[in-house]
Amino acid sequence: MGEGAGGIMASGGTICTITALVTARHQRGLDGQQACLYASADCHNSLAKALRVMGLPAAALRLVSTDDAGRLDPHRLDQSLEKETDPILAVVATAGTTVRGAVDPIGPIADICHRRGLWLHVDGAIGAVCGLGGQRHQELVAHMGCADSLTINPQKWLGIAKASAMVLLRQPQALADTFAAPLAYMEPARGVHGGDCGLQGTRPAEVLKLWLGLRHLGQQGIDELLDGALQRAQTLRQALAPLPLAMPSGNLHIVCFRPRTAGSSEAWSRHTREQLLDQGLMLSRPRYRGQHYLKAVLGNPFTGMQQIAALVDTISASLSS
Amino acid sequence: MGEGAGGIMASGGTICTITALVTARHQRGLDGQQACLYASADCHNSLAKALRVMGLPAAALRLVSTDDAGRLDPHRLDQSLEKETDPILAVVATAGTTVRGAVDPIGPIADICHRRGLWLHVDGAIGAVCGLGGQRHQELVAHMGCADSLTINPQKWLGIAKASAMVLLRQPQALADTFAAPLAYMEPARGVHGGDCGLQGTRPAEVLKLWLGLRHLGQQGIDELLDGALQRAQTLRQALAPLPLAMPSGNLHIVCFRPRTAGSSEAWSRHTREQLLDQGLMLSRPRYRGQHYLKAVLGNPFTGMQQIAALVDTISASLSS
Repeated sequence: MGEGAGGIMASGGTICTITALVTARHQRGLDGQQACLYASADCHNSLAKALRVMGLPAAALRLVSTDDAGRLDPHRLDQSLEKETDPILAVVATAGTTVRGAVDPIGPIADICHRRGLWLHVDGAIGAVCGLGGQRHQELVAHMGCADSLTINPQKWLGIAKASAMVLLRQPQALADTFAAPLAYMEPARGVHGGDCGLQGTRPAEVLKLWLGLRHLGQQGIDELLDGALQRAQTLRQALAPLPLAMPSGNLHIVCFRPRTAGSSEAWSRHTREQLLDQGLMLSRPRYRGQHYLKAVLGNPFTGMQQIAALVDTISASLSS
Repeated sequence: MGEGAGGIMASGGTICTITALVTARHQRGLDGQQACLYASADCHNSLAKALRVMGLPAAALRLVSTDDAGRLDPHRLDQSLEKETDPILAVVATAGTTVRGAVDPIGPIADICHRRGLWLHVDGAIGAVCGLGGQRHQELVAHMGCADSLTINPQKWLGIAKASAMVLLRQPQALADTFAAPLAYMEPARGVHGGDCGLQGTRPAEVLKLWLGLRHLGQQGIDELLDGALQRAQTLRQALAPLPLAMPSGNLHIVCFRPRTAGSSEAWSRHTREQLLDQGLMLSRPRYRGQHYLKAVLGNPFTGMQQIAALVDTISASLSS
């Protein structure tokens, strides 16, 4: 994000998102106005929550449809922005969508934002940690550094204990500009104090935990964790591929599927989830594009081939019964 | 606050305050409107920050003057509310003001709010823990239970490691009503899940730390901590009383003072603070009603008579020099 970039830790991705969007609104002079927000139809629900906190109606969230790979369609984004009549608070690109782990095409989206003078926030709560890996991992979230603000949440993939989320800004001074509220009892320290930067005042020194965790892993450890998760996801996808499943996965460590047969997958997903839980395998059951799916997150380095095989067996049996 | 009361933990008092005020706004149907907020002139700056996050202008915070004891004047509050033309988001009473530890008269304020149908939030980040003590401590924050929402922050006085703040509501369902945002990937658990209640989604189980801390202290331990702090403050006040100081303290564990001489106390407070720091005594230096003060917080049970004597000696010498 550039030499001058910086930011703060916050208690979870949602607080990071709220912090970034409040900053964007304030920096763009839109406090108290009916501004709107653009994001993909697959964005995280924390955007809806942020709007409520910020006093904006639910309709202020303009959802842009995604392509077959679950990624925001930049052409449609550009068309929608062209027609927008309300002030635009920010565009949010998602690096790792909740249900399928898709990464929006950040480069083209950043070009659009740059051309139109719009704030780009990247919600990388799930995927931005790939930027900490080697080149092949960084390419998964290419152009992420073009963002004006970025949420990154190492607790979700690198095994750093929560909360270890951060919001990073190209111009971190914007945080102090936005949140500064004079504290009668604080001595000024270099112009601003920590309580001026973000929603939280006093807070625990979680950066120590994050710093120690990253030092402990090292570059090789980070790459191994990322690789392991991506490989497990790839192994699961390949094992499930012969089965009659719709599997709209992205290219991160998340695998999401339902029976390809017509009709509701509600009963199947509920029943199969119970069977998996009986074996100690916890899959979530998201609703996506009108259907229920089962979703496996392969981030845990202790998930082995045995669990993956058991999962595939159960899914296979559930489809033939 | 009644049998049905409940709430959530949050990362610090500021997040609690924002949570309570966003809830009040939503419950009163004022999202997206130019609502205003009433509090005393001595309220904490987190109210100003909350308004900014919520998209309301700074002028939406209506400050009611305080009496000689630093407490919100209920009569003036009532007069101001009578003349108000904007919708009123909430009234905030402070139980333990930042600079002097004053407790607003919560009973009369609650009566006014009840009569006018207004939401009462009590910011008890500093003082609400007195409600956990015996009767003599509870009386310091009398009628606190009349609040619709309450911030309590045991980290500030009882030595529970941060973050241990909570926002409590008379009707905790209001949290879910306000913050619920459907999570595609969550199985419904009794109608709402934790992520629906408040700003934060995933969060660490800090309640365990708080619960263990309170169990460890027990009722006797809590009372001893509260008593110790109140007694140290009383000791310091009595030792400073013969000196030519203005000492506008409340009746909690905070003691605040400046030279009674006319003119700016800026240089004196800065210089004396440095001298105290050299002895390992950290006082803050708030600005209050146009003057700089030194402020001692006597919450630490390891602050002994020796430190208090050294503090008094230094203050005494600084006044004669």
